[in-house]
This record gives sequence, structure tokens and C-alpha cells, in this order.
Amino acid sequence: MKLNFIAQRVLMSNAYLMPFSRARMFSSSSMSAVKRWEGGVSMIQGASRGIGLEFVRQLLEKNDKGYVVATCRNPNGATGLLELKNKFAERLDIHQLDLTIESTMEETAKCLREKYGYLNLLVNASGILSIPDVLKPETTLSKVERASLLLAYEINAVGPVLVVKHMWPLLKVEGGSGMNRDFAIVANISARVGSIGDNRLGGWHSYRASKTALNQLTKTISVEFARKKDPIICILLHPGTVDTDLSRPFQGNVPEGKLFTKEFSVQKLLSIINNAKGSDNGKFFAWDGQEIPW
Amino acid sequence: MKLNFIAQRVLMSNAYLMPFSRARMFSSSSMSAVKRWEGGVSMIQGASRGIGLEFVRQLLEKNDKGYVVATCRNPNGATGLLELKNKFAERLDIHQLDLTIESTMEETAKCLREKYGYLNLLVNASGILSIPDVLKPETTLSKVERASLLLAYEINAVGPVLVVKHMWPLLKVEGGSGMNRDFAIVANISARVGSIGDNRLGGWHSYRASKTALNQLTKTISVEFARKKDPIICILLHPGTVDTDLSRPFQGNVPEGKLFTKEFSVQKLLSIINNAKGSDNGKFFAWDGQEIPW
Ligand SMILES: NC(=O)c1ccc[n+]([C@@H]2O[C@H](COP(=O)([O-])OP(=O)(O)OC[C@H]3O[C@@H](n4cnc5c(N)ncnc54)[C@H](OP(=O)(O)O)[C@@H]3O)[C@@H](O)[C@H]2O)c1
Ligand SMILES: NC(=O)c1ccc[n+]([C@@H]2O[C@H](COP(=O)([O-])OP(=O)(O)OC[C@H]3O[C@@H](n4cnc5c(N)ncnc54)[C@H](OP(=O)(O)O)[C@@H]3O)[C@@H](O)[C@H]2O)c1
Repeated sequence: MKLNFIAQRVLMSNAYLMPFSRARMFSSSSMSAVKRWEGGVSMIQGASRGIGLEFVRQLLEKNDKGYVVATCRNPNGATGLLELKNKFAERLDIHQLDLTIESTMEETAKCLREKYGYLNLLVNASGILSIPDVLKPETTLSKVERASLLLAYEINAVGPVLVVKHMWPLLKVEGGSGMNRDFAIVANISARVGSIGDNRLGGWHSYRASKTALNQLTKTISVEFARKKDPIICILLHPGTVDTDLSRPFQGNVPEGKLFTKEFSVQKLLSIINNAKGSDNGKFFAWDGQEIPW
Repeated sequence: MKLNFIAQRVLMSNAYLMPFSRARMFSSSSMSAVKRWEGGVSMIQGASRGIGLEFVRQLLEKNDKGYVVATCRNPNGATGLLELKNKFAERLDIHQLDLTIESTMEETAKCLREKYGYLNLLVNASGILSIPDVLKPETTLSKVERASLLLAYEINAVGPVLVVKHMWPLLKVEGGSGMNRDFAIVANISARVGSIGDNRLGGWHSYRASKTALNQLTKTISVEFARKKDPIICILLHPGTVDTDLSRPFQGNVPEGKLFTKEFSVQKLLSIINNAKGSDNGKFFAWDGQEIPW
């Protein structure tokens, strides 16, 4: 018994030294304890509204076998999600997850491990830019405040990375098998204004810096996953300027025809996710598939 | 009287619409209330030890007319600075400044305004990578913690930016006049591991992300200074791997001949500062003058 256990551990750890596809074949043939969820299991974090909610909708509508786990801070108030739950029943699970409370991530991971055993796709779709009376995008350095810098960082950079940390064990179990891909995908929604090279206008210090940091953290994680030969790739996505609560206060400045619907943006982002290659690991793409400079 | 005051305001604000050198000529001829400090006034923030202390020493030794303001958390315990104070007397001022307490920045700015009236150079030389029992550079995502991410961000990114915010009014008064330059310089000490493009090893999540964010914040500030035609440029500097308390726990991994002395590194960084051109605004340089990708 003891020898068997050790041998199994050695075999399992060796699996992660193999290239992606080989590792997947290995794990799917030997780890028979894991039930296979046809259509795959996806998790959308930040799914109460906006782009996150639209990801949940399109994943459920476009793949009639896929399972979706939607997380948000306040499930009872997430009317959009509750409507989808009525329609898609057992294909949609809603979990409470607050980016500022790490135990809600642990709890979600525990539930997913028990119910599904693995995860094929994780989209971090949450984000903050402005909150009335709390956070306001800065127009000048004189208005930059410690509390705003820290708040934007905590929600836009720290939170998503901790979510990846807690979902990592689930993402590596089966890679992308449920979705006929060689790898699981982590897609962190960033923003073009997080690009340093592309920063020509200045301003929005707290938001910009938090997204730039998210880019660096995602890149850092992608390097580790690749080095460990985990069957996971990480990408960063800029959704374009999208008609949601987040952009509403600033839509006056958006040129005609440049404000996307959620439907259009998420369709584009899903096509990037669905066509992602192993060599996309650690890259930053705009909605149209163009790479954005760091 | 009233008309005069308004006219003066218009003239002053127009000065900032002019190119650097013109603005300086204008301000130096008309703002005669400001006493000129031959040799210029420099501020080194994070000057108790390491690279910051060495900046203070070299600035005092190499420019026998320059004034240096050194700031640190605990002036009474800063033995290196106290020794320099004995030697350079009135050319060195020591002020208490803690990056986590914004009022200490306001207080320092107030003292400088009253005593010198302006600032020609600001170097943010502080930084944290590891603190026993508090902060440890992460070797894997599983060890990434919320508290470490936030602490590194607060000290390495938020603090230096708030210092620039409070010194901005002093930096724009005279630009680089005291040092025979067309502009004042803000030099924020970053680190090559803050580069996303150059991130091939992964790890050190908290430190990396905080330096990447510092890069974005510095770039953002540089855009505003340029747009306002303020006679200030901002640059980011990587000092190389330097023999200080910060690098000590990791020096075992440094290849032979790649560990610089503080003296060598600061000599190189000062030469970049002294030779900086207006077109360097918002750029990130290594100790050898090579630009580092974002
Ligand atoms: N819209 C655009 O033009 C645009 C452009 C570039 C990038 N982006 C990025 O795209 C992503 C989605 O933005 P959006 O436009 O869909 O924004 P949105 O409509 O304002 O939605 C933001 C989402 O983030 C969630 N969230 C905020 N704080 C949270 C916390 N502490 N814990 C958990 N969830 C939290 C919100 O949940 P609650 O309902 O609980 O508040 C909501 O679901 C963000 O990362 C944003 O930065 C958007
Ligand atoms: N050494 C290297 O190899 C290397 C490589 C790349 C980049 N850098 C960067 O170079 C800069 C200087 O590093 P170093 O090697 O000189 O490090 P160091 O010898 O450890 O000195 C760090 C300095 O930062 C100050 N500091 C820390 N927390 C502070 C706070 N809350 N408020 C004010 N000051 C605070 C320290 O003051 P106390 O004495 O009060 O603690 C000390 O003066 C840092 O930005 C570092 O990231 C260093």
C-alpha cells in the first residue's frame, strides 16, 4: 500500500515534467477518479454585472453541455445571474466570492473540488475604476491619494491573483480536456490603460497602476506554470471600451462607434480564448486579437 | 492692485505653456523673490542606508557648492547620515520622512519651501524586498499573500509617488537652474525585475508588481509634467545588483563580478542623471544607460 502511494506520487509529479498534451493524456488515463464533465467547467469571477455576467450568458448559450460557476460578492442581489439560473438550472452554479476576503476563495475552491474535481477555464472579470464618494480616477498628480492607490490595487491586482492561487490546483487536474484543449486557460481582464508603453495621456493613476501590476503578476504566474509544465496558460485581455456601469461616467469622451456592447466585446474575447495557443501564454491581447505592448 | 495680481497669475500660468528653457528663463528673471542656491538643492528620500546614503555622500563630495536634503524614517538612528552631517555641516539637512505617513512628506515640503524655496533633484531611493518575519520574496504562487502584496505596493510604489506629489510645487519653481540644467529631475529607483517584458524567471511577485506599478506611475506623472510644460523630467533607474542590506540574503545567486559596490552603482546612476536630456522624460534606464523594456 505504502509503496503504491509513493509510486503514484512519483508518477503524478512526473506528469508535470512532460509537455502539455502528453501530461493531459497521462492524467486523463490514470486519474480515473475524476469524473469527466462533458463541455467542460468554467468559472467567471466578478459575474454579477457587466462583462462578467455576459461571459456567463454566452458560455451557457454557446456550449449547451458546458458547466459554469459564476461568483460574485452578493448572490442574492445578482438579478442577472438569478435569471440565468432559472433558464440554465444545473448548468450554472452561483458562489459568493469577495475579492477582499480570501476565505471566500478557499470556500469556492473547496466546493468546486468536491462537485467537479477540476476547472478548465477561469476568467477574472471583476474590476473597479470609480466608486461614488470612494474612488475617482485622478485627473492630476495633485489628486492622487494613498487610499485610492491601495484600494484599486487590492481589487484589481491582489484579488484576481489570489483567485488564481486558490484555483490553481483545480486548473492543473485536467487542463483543458473538458473543452478539447490541451490546456486550461486563465484569462485576466486587464485594460489598455494598464500599458506603460501605450500611456500617452497620463491620469487615472490608481486604475492604471493596478492594471499594470495585474499584467506583471499574470506574467509572473504564467512563467511558473510553464516552468512546471502545468497544462495551463494565462492571458490578459483588454475588452475595448464597453457599455457597462464601469465606463458609464466616461462615455461622453468616447468617439462615435467606439463604444462596444457587452455582447460584441465578450464574443471577441471568447474567440481569443477559444483560439488560444500554448505560445500565447503570458501575453496581453486587445479584443481584436492584437497584442498590446507592456 | 487686483489687476496686477491677476496679470501676474496669467503671466505665471503662461510660463508653463512655454518650452522648458524659455520657462526657466522667464521664471528666473521674474520670480526674484526666490533666493538662488549655488550648486543646487537635491533631496534623497530613503537615505539612511544603502544606495540612498551613497547618493547623499557622492552629491556632497562631488559638488562642493550643492545642498542636500536627506530624508529617512529615523534620523537619530541614521549613523551614516550623522557622520556626513559632521563633515558637511550646513550643506546637509536631515529630515524625518516615513513613506507610510503622508504628513511627514507635507512637513518636509514645508521646511524645504521655507528654507530653500525650491528643489532641483529628487531621488526616491527607498525600497523593500524582504523583512524578516514580515515580507519574503515569493518563490511560487502558492506562497503569495495579500498582506505582502499590499505592503510592497505601499512602500515601493505608493510612497515614492506621494513624495513626488508633495515635492512637485518645489520642483517646478526653478527647474534645474541651480544645477545648470534646463529641468529639475525626479529619479525613482526601480528594479529590472519590475520589467514585464524582461520577466523570464517568475517569482518575487510582491516586489516585481510593486516596481512595475512604480514604473507606470512614474510614466503617468512624466506625461502630466510634459503636458503642463513644467520644467521637470522623471526617470526610472535600475542600479544593478548592489551590495546592500537589501540584496544580502540573495547574493549567493549572483555570478562572480556582477555584484556592484554602492560607490560604483551610484557613480553610474549620477552620470545618467547628470547627462539626462528632455527626451529621457518617462524612460527606464539600467546603471549602464541602456533602456529597459517595460
Ligand atoms: N467597461 C469598459 O469599458 C472596460 C474597459 C477596459 C477594461 N475593463 C475591465 O473589464 C472588467 C469588467 O468591467 P465591467 O465594465 O464589466 O465593470 P462593471 O460592470 O462595473 O462590473 C464590475 C464587476 O466587478 C465586481 N466587483 C467589484 N468589486 C468586487 C469585489 N470586491 N469582489 C468581487 N467582485 C467585485 C462587481 O461586483 P458587484 O456587482 O458586487 O459590485 C461587478 O461584477 C474589469 O476588470 C474592468 O477593469 C472594462
Ligand atoms: N541592492 C540591489 O541590488 C538593488 C537592485 C535593484 C533595485 N534596488 C532598489 O534600490 C533602492 C535602494 O535599495 P538598497 O539596496 O539601498 O536597500 P537598503 O540598503 O535595504 O535600503 C533601503 C532604504 O529604504 C528605506 N525604507 C524602507 N522602508 C521605508 C519607509 N517606510 N519609509 C522610508 N524609508 C524606508 C530604508 O530605511 P530604514 O533604514 O529606515 O529601514 C533604507 O534607507 C530600492 O528601491 C531597491 O528596490 C536595489
